Amino acid sequence: MEEKDRANVCHEREPEMTKKIDITELILRDAHQSVMATRMSLEDMVPACEDLDKAGYWSVECWGGATFDSCIRFLNEDPWERLRTFRRLMPNTRLQMLLRGQNLLGYRHYEDGVVDRFVEKAAETGIDVFRVFDALNDIRNLERAVAAVRRTGKHAQGAISYTVSPLHTTGGFVDLAKKLLDRGCNSICIKDMAALLKPRAAYDLVRGIKDACGEETRVQVHVHATTGVTLVSLMKAIEAGADCVDAALSPLSLGPGHNPTESVVEMLQGTEFETDLDKGRILKLKQYFNTIRPRYQEFLSNITGVETEIFESQIPGGMISNMESQLKQQKAGDRMAEVLAEVPKVRADAGFPPLVTPSSQIVGTQAVFNVLMGKYKVLTGEFVDLMLGYYGETIGPRNPEVIAIAAGKSTKEPVTCRPADLLKPEWQELRKAALELPGCNGSDEDVLTYAMFPQVAPKFFATRDEGPKNLGKDPGAQPAAAPGAAPVVDNGKGPVRSPITYNVKLKGITHQVTVTPA
Amino acid sequence: MEEKDRANVCHEREPEMTKKIDITELILRDAHQSVMATRMSLEDMVPACEDLDKAGYWSVECWGGATFDSCIRFLNEDPWERLRTFRRLMPNTRLQMLLRGQNLLGYRHYEDGVVDRFVEKAAETGIDVFRVFDALNDIRNLERAVAAVRRTGKHAQGAISYTVSPLHTTGGFVDLAKKLLDRGCNSICIKDMAALLKPRAAYDLVRGIKDACGEETRVQVHVHATTGVTLVSLMKAIEAGADCVDAALSPLSLGPGHNPTESVVEMLQGTEFETDLDKGRILKLKQYFNTIRPRYQEFLSNITGVETEIFESQIPGGMISNMESQLKQQKAGDRMAEVLAEVPKVRADAGFPPLVTPSSQIVGTQAVFNVLMGKYKVLTGEFVDLMLGYYGETIGPRNPEVIAIAAGKSTKEPVTCRPADLLKPEWQELRKAALELPGCNGSDEDVLTYAMFPQVAPKFFATRDEGPKNLGKDPGAQPAAAPGAAPVVDNGKGPVRSPITYNVKLKGITHQVTVTPA
Repeated sequence: MEEKDRANVCHEREPEMTKKIDITELILRDAHQSVMATRMSLEDMVPACEDLDKAGYWSVECWGGATFDSCIRFLNEDPWERLRTFRRLMPNTRLQMLLRGQNLLGYRHYEDGVVDRFVEKAAETGIDVFRVFDALNDIRNLERAVAAVRRTGKHAQGAISYTVSPLHTTGGFVDLAKKLLDRGCNSICIKDMAALLKPRAAYDLVRGIKDACGEETRVQVHVHATTGVTLVSLMKAIEAGADCVDAALSPLSLGPGHNPTESVVEMLQGTEFETDLDKGRILKLKQYFNTIRPRYQEFLSNITGVETEIFESQIPGGMISNMESQLKQQKAGDRMAEVLAEVPKVRADAGFPPLVTPSSQIVGTQAVFNVLMGKYKVLTGEFVDLMLGYYGETIGPRNPEVIAIAAGKSTKEPVTCRPADLLKPEWQELRKAALELPGCNGSDEDVLTYAMFPQVAPKFFATRDEGPKNLGKDPGAQPAAAPGAAPVVDNGKGPVRSPITYNVKLKGITHQVTVTPA
Repeated sequence: MEEKDRANVCHEREPEMTKKIDITELILRDAHQSVMATRMSLEDMVPACEDLDKAGYWSVECWGGATFDSCIRFLNEDPWERLRTFRRLMPNTRLQMLLRGQNLLGYRHYEDGVVDRFVEKAAETGIDVFRVFDALNDIRNLERAVAAVRRTGKHAQGAISYTVSPLHTTGGFVDLAKKLLDRGCNSICIKDMAALLKPRAAYDLVRGIKDACGEETRVQVHVHATTGVTLVSLMKAIEAGADCVDAALSPLSLGPGHNPTESVVEMLQGTEFETDLDKGRILKLKQYFNTIRPRYQEFLSNITGVETEIFESQIPGGMISNMESQLKQQKAGDRMAEVLAEVPKVRADAGFPPLVTPSSQIVGTQAVFNVLMGKYKVLTGEFVDLMLGYYGETIGPRNPEVIAIAAGKSTKEPVTCRPADLLKPEWQELRKAALELPGCNGSDEDVLTYAMFPQVAPKFFATRDEGPKNLGKDPGAQPAAAPGAAPVVDNGKGPVRSPITYNVKLKGITHQVTVTPA
C-alpha cells in the first residue's frame, strides 16, 4: 500500500499490515517542566530509568534549557552529571534534548564557536537526538547548531515552531521544513508548544511535508494538551504519515503538559498503526510516577482543565499568567482585558512572531507597558532588540514606525544579518570568567554551564559539593491544599501564594506579618 | 456527496460543504454526577439556563436516576419542580433524560403500568428526549418504556450499553440497534459509560449501524473520558457518520466525566463537520461553571488523570473504588489483586453482562464475597436474581453450576421470561403507601417519587417544606483538601493555603496564628 493512500483507507478495511509509530517519552524533561515547574530531582528519576530504557521508546527526552537551569538553580545538581547518569542507566534508548538554536540553553545568541563546543560536549556526554528550534523560525538561527550536530554523527531534528497568524500557512511551514532538510536535518518536528494545532491542520501539515519532501522524510509531532484537542491532532497526524509522536506518562500529563503515553498507545489499537511499547512496563512506570507526583504537590500546575480560549487569543496560558502578575505588581489587575486586546497589535507590529519563549515574554511585557504607560512610550530592551532585528527575521515586516521609535531609544542600528554574525569569538573570555569562580573545576562542562547561566552558575559552583537537593516532600509533611484553588483557578481570583503579607489581629492589635510556610 | 464516502475524503480536499454535528450538553446531569457526586443544586444551575438554552445545543441532558435521588436525598429539592424550572427557563432546547428501561429511575423492575405513568408524567412535565437503556442490553427490558415514550410523541432514543468481552461484537451491537429501531426508537445511542470505546471500534460501530439500518438512522455517541482516548473516538464516530455527540462544559469534564464541549467544537474546525454552538455563550458558560465548581470542592472526584488499565481489566473506575471500600470494611484491603482477578471469572459465570449500574455492583460485590468467604459460599440476593434470570437475559449462557448454587440458596425458580411479566399491577398499592406518608401531597408525581425511592422519599416528603439546601460552600469556608488529592500551584515557593496555622515570631515571641487570606 502506498503511504499516501493510508489516511484514505484506514477506516475502510481490516488492516493488512500495521505501521509502527515511534514514541518519544517526555516525562524526564518537558512533562515535569510543564506540570511540575521542572523540579523533579535525578534521585526520583533513577528508579524509572530501567523501565524507560526497556519499554521500547524511540527516544527519551531528558535534557533542555529549563531542566539545566533548574538543576543548578534549585536542585544543586550538575546537569552534565545528570546526563551521564541517564546515559549509563539507559544504554538502549536514544536520549533526546531540546536546543534553542543559536541560543543553546540560554536567552541570548552565542557565538558559533560556543555553539560548536556545546553540541560536541552534549553529544559526547550522551545526547543522541538534538531537537533544534528558533522562536522566530529564522533558519539562520538554526543552521550552525544543525551543522554541529551533524558533525558529531548524531540525529539533528529541525523543529518548526507552530503558530497561527494571518501570515502563517501550511505552505510556509512546509517551505521551512524543506529548508531544514536542506541544512542537513535528519528529521522534522512540528513543535506546538501552545496546543494550537487542530486535527485538520495537523493532517494537512504532515501530509504537506511528506508530499513536498518525500514520504521517506521522517516527521515527528510534539503537541501540548492545553486546549484538549491535540490527542485527536496526533491521530490525524499519524493518519497523514507522521512517524513519531511525543507523549508523557499520565501521572505528569494533560493540562499545560502533553497527551498521556498510555492513551496514545490505546487509541491506535485496531487501526493500521501501532506502537511497540511494552504495556507492562508502561503500567509499572505509571504506578511509579504516581508515587512521585504527590511529593511535588507544591509545584504542580493548577491547570487541569482545558483552555480553548487560546484558539481565539493565540496567547498561551503561561503568558497570560505572566502578564497578570505584571499587572498586579503595578496595581492594575483590572486592565487585563486591555492588555489582551493589545497583544495581537504588538505581535502584528513585531511581524507576527510565534509566541514562544522568549518572544511570548517580549511581546506580552510590551503589551503591558503600552497599556500602562502609553503606546510605545516605554520599550523594554528586548523589544527594542526584537524590532531592530537582533533576534532575527520575523515572518512579516515589522512596523517601520515602531522600528523608528525603537531605534530612537537605542544606540543600536537596525540589522538584517544573522544576529550571531555580530558576535566575536567569546570562548576564551567565558573560560577565563568561569575559572575565576570559586568551585569551578576548570572543565569545558563548567565553562558551558557558566556560559548558559552566568547569573546562576557562580552560586551553583560554590555549593556543588553539598550535593543534590531533593525538593520532593512526603505528602503528609506538606501544607494542606487550598480549598477551591486546586483544579480550576482560571476564575480570576488566582491562588494564594507565598510569601504573603497578612494583617494579623492579635490581642486586639493588627500587625502586618509576612509569612512563608515552613 | 454520498454519506458513506465521507470518512474517505474528509482529509483529502477542502471541504465543499459541512455537515452539522449536534451536541448534547451533559453538565446538568451526567457531568456533575460523574465528577461532583451529583450535588449541584438547582439554584446553581438556574443562572446558566438562558445561555444553555440559546447556545444551540440539540439537547440538554438534565434529569436521571442519580440526579432525582440526589434531589430528595441531599438537596431537599423536588425533582419534578426542578424539571418544571428547566422547562420554563429553557423553552427552545430539547430537555433530555436517562431512563433505565423497566427500572425507570430505581433499582428494581417496575410493572408496566408504573412505567407508562412515569413516562407520561415526565413528558408532560418537560422531557423531550428519553434515552432508554438496560444494563444487560435485554431488549425486553426496554420495549415497554420505548412504546410509552412513542405514545407521548416525544423522542425515544434506544441506547446500547457498550462493553468489551469475548462475546460482544460490532455485529451483535448492530443487531441490537436494529431491534431498538424495530421497537420504534427514533434514534440510537452508543452509550460507553466506562470509556472503553476506542477510535477504531467507534468508527466501525457507527458505520455498521448506518450500513445496516440506513444512513438516515440517527446515531448519537455518549462516551466518558476516563481512559483518555475517547475524544479521538468521537472524531472517528463523526467521520463514520454519527449525527450527535455528548459533551460537558470543561469545568465539569474529564477524569471520570466526559470530553469538554469546547474541545469537541474546536476539534472540528477546518474539517467538513461543524457544530452550531455559539462560542461566546459557551465561553460565558465555562466562566460561570468555573465559579460554581470550587463551591463543591469536597464532592469533587480526585481522579483527574487517565486510567487505561480499564482496557485490560474492563472494570470501570467507580467499581474498583466500591470494591476497595468493601475490602477495607472487612479489613482485607490487601486482597484487591485477588478480587481483580476474580471479577472476570464472576462476569463470565454471569454470562458476560456489561459492567454498568447495577450489574457492575452485583458482579463486583460477588467477587469480593468469593475472595473473602470462598467461591460462591455466600451469594448476595442480587447475584442470585442475576443468575436466575430476574434481571433479564445476558449475552452469554450463565454457568449452570452457579445457577444451581443460586437456586439452592433461594426459594425462587430460574426464569427466562421478561422479568416484568412476573409483576402484578402495583400502582394502587404504591399510591396508597405514598399517601400515608406525612408531607405527601397526593399527586402522581409524589407517588412516582415514592415508587422510585421508597427508602428516601418519606424523609423528603416530611422535610420538603423547609425548601432546597445548597451544599455548595464559599471556598474559604471549606475544610482544606487532603494533600495529594488535587494539584495545586506552580510558582515553586509553596502555596499558602487557607486556613493555615502558622508559628509567627513577633518581637521574639512565637505565637500560633491561624490565618485566612482576606
